[in-house]
Amino acid sequence: MARGTLDIDTYRSKILSAHDRIKPYIHNTPLLCSNAINKKAGCEIYFKCENFQKIGAFKMRGAINAVLSYSLTKRRKGFVTHSSGNHAQAVALSSKIVNSKAHIVMPKGAPKIKVVAVKGYGAQVYLCDNNEKSRIDTCKKIINKTGANFIHPFDNDDVISGQASCAKEIFEEENGFDFIICPVGGGGLASGTILSTQIFSPLTTVILGEPLKASDAYQSFAKNKLIPVNKPTTIADGLKTSLSERTFKIIKKGTKKIITVSEEEIVSAMKLIWERLKIVCEPSCSVPLAALLKEKENFRNKKVAIILTGGNVDLENLPF
Amino acid sequence: MARGTLDIDTYRSKILSAHDRIKPYIHNTPLLCSNAINKKAGCEIYFKCENFQKIGAFKMRGAINAVLSYSLTKRRKGFVTHSSGNHAQAVALSSKIVNSKAHIVMPKGAPKIKVVAVKGYGAQVYLCDNNEKSRIDTCKKIINKTGANFIHPFDNDDVISGQASCAKEIFEEENGFDFIICPVGGGGLASGTILSTQIFSPLTTVILGEPLKASDAYQSFAKNKLIPVNKPTTIADGLKTSLSERTFKIIKKGTKKIITVSEEEIVSAMKLIWERLKIVCEPSCSVPLAALLKEKENFRNKKVAIILTGGNVDLENLPF
Repeated sequence: MARGTLDIDTYRSKILSAHDRIKPYIHNTPLLCSNAINKKAGCEIYFKCENFQKIGAFKMRGAINAVLSYSLTKRRKGFVTHSSGNHAQAVALSSKIVNSKAHIVMPKGAPKIKVVAVKGYGAQVYLCDNNEKSRIDTCKKIINKTGANFIHPFDNDDVISGQASCAKEIFEEENGFDFIICPVGGGGLASGTILSTQIFSPLTTVILGEPLKASDAYQSFAKNKLIPVNKPTTIADGLKTSLSERTFKIIKKGTKKIITVSEEEIVSAMKLIWERLKIVCEPSCSVPLAALLKEKENFRNKKVAIILTGGNVDLENLPF
Repeated sequence: MARGTLDIDTYRSKILSAHDRIKPYIHNTPLLCSNAINKKAGCEIYFKCENFQKIGAFKMRGAINAVLSYSLTKRRKGFVTHSSGNHAQAVALSSKIVNSKAHIVMPKGAPKIKVVAVKGYGAQVYLCDNNEKSRIDTCKKIINKTGANFIHPFDNDDVISGQASCAKEIFEEENGFDFIICPVGGGGLASGTILSTQIFSPLTTVILGEPLKASDAYQSFAKNKLIPVNKPTTIADGLKTSLSERTFKIIKKGTKKIITVSEEEIVSAMKLIWERLKIVCEPSCSVPLAALLKEKENFRNKKVAIILTGGNVDLENLPF
């Protein structure tokens, strides 16, 4: 599949500014390797450990970049988003950092531990029904009342440019990667990774991993039109979201292949990471390694970067 | 309690040589911090992550030092030890590194996963009854037959000097520690930590943490005589062993206090480490943090190093 071109110059300056802007507020997370995993996979893998990132996930990069991109005047109005996951915590902490109010819309039935975490950063939580309309209506009401700035979890160039700093850090620390693999949900990280790769490591090929049970990106990519997924049920709860037009446009031009994996393959890769790297990561994290292992003949003896997206997992409800 | 003096000059040269000798075969593991844990504890904690060490535990340091301390001629006879835990894997891998045969005596009923891991390093496993006499008799038979060199898990100066490299690395990376806390089982790591602290960071106070259910060190320390523990049942399976005369002598002179913790306190500290540091560690690891949290008023606003000893845990049998 041919790799097209994006409006690279615009994104180049956005990503360079974003990384400079957010550096004081994020960790440059380590790259870890495991001989045992390399032996099993037949290639050389560098895991970028975003489970060690602030709030325990890469989402901090995009959220803090978006928040810092607003003027001081606009920041006073506060920020609003809808998320039941890591983006909620990221916007809550980012708002706290700039002394702004965060309004976080979460679905009723969201894990109590996540609601508590968001409140722990001083954010106000609004519970809505578990559907798109209720989420959007609740956000709109908050915006009308407070004038708060909306930060979409992925359909936002500042968020995408922040997430792009993750792959940029990888290429600053190591070079010569044949492949970089990241998971795809809404496509914010995938888009940022594609852009950073084209700019900072253009000989590296981007591969995306996606759960078979939430394979909207795979299907959209195959049929060349946006096909949202309907009520996905995968254990990789960070990857249930569907692409937007913006992220689909970047992904269809910038990725070579999307590999889908089963729930069993995800859990098995997750266990391998815990056992061998001795780190705690989310099911969503394990999708790229599962994808690599599924098609390992295509990666034989290659140098591969894998982004481990986060480590916020319910320890009392593990899949093994 | 007064801190006495040890035969420091002898140990100083042993520890310096040990660290030089083993450096190519071990990882200088990272020090990790967590704002959330610091806030909860009321002090500044640096966790030395030996869960990222070769074979997943600090035991690699002592075993490889002991093996490398033998002449080439003696190495040809192979090595023998008894252990159902991390020392078994450490001797197996260390022997493999010097192309020697490892004979590992393990009790019948040892976790299959550990037997498989030891065999995976090319060692020969001998199953014995689960008591001291059977362990020693089996080792003796092997020694009589093969001439293999016996490497005790902790009652051995080369092993102690190897374990000492762990605290040495901590003091090389950071300074100004008020306290260093490590767990105590047979006392190999505790002894090495005490010696390195007296040599490389003499203003730092050594505190030991021990499970209440395996508190032989605490009782021996209190009564100033060696009191072995009888069939301990703690979840901290790496700390069931009792001190030897050698390790007791070092510990009673070099530690300020031994803090005992309950099983609940161990599990609670373990969960905190997993949730906040996002790393996989063994129950034994969590004993020092449990000890600190139990007596946190004594550590308020202090700078504390904690050794996380290893990360080999059965993921399918977690205590939470």
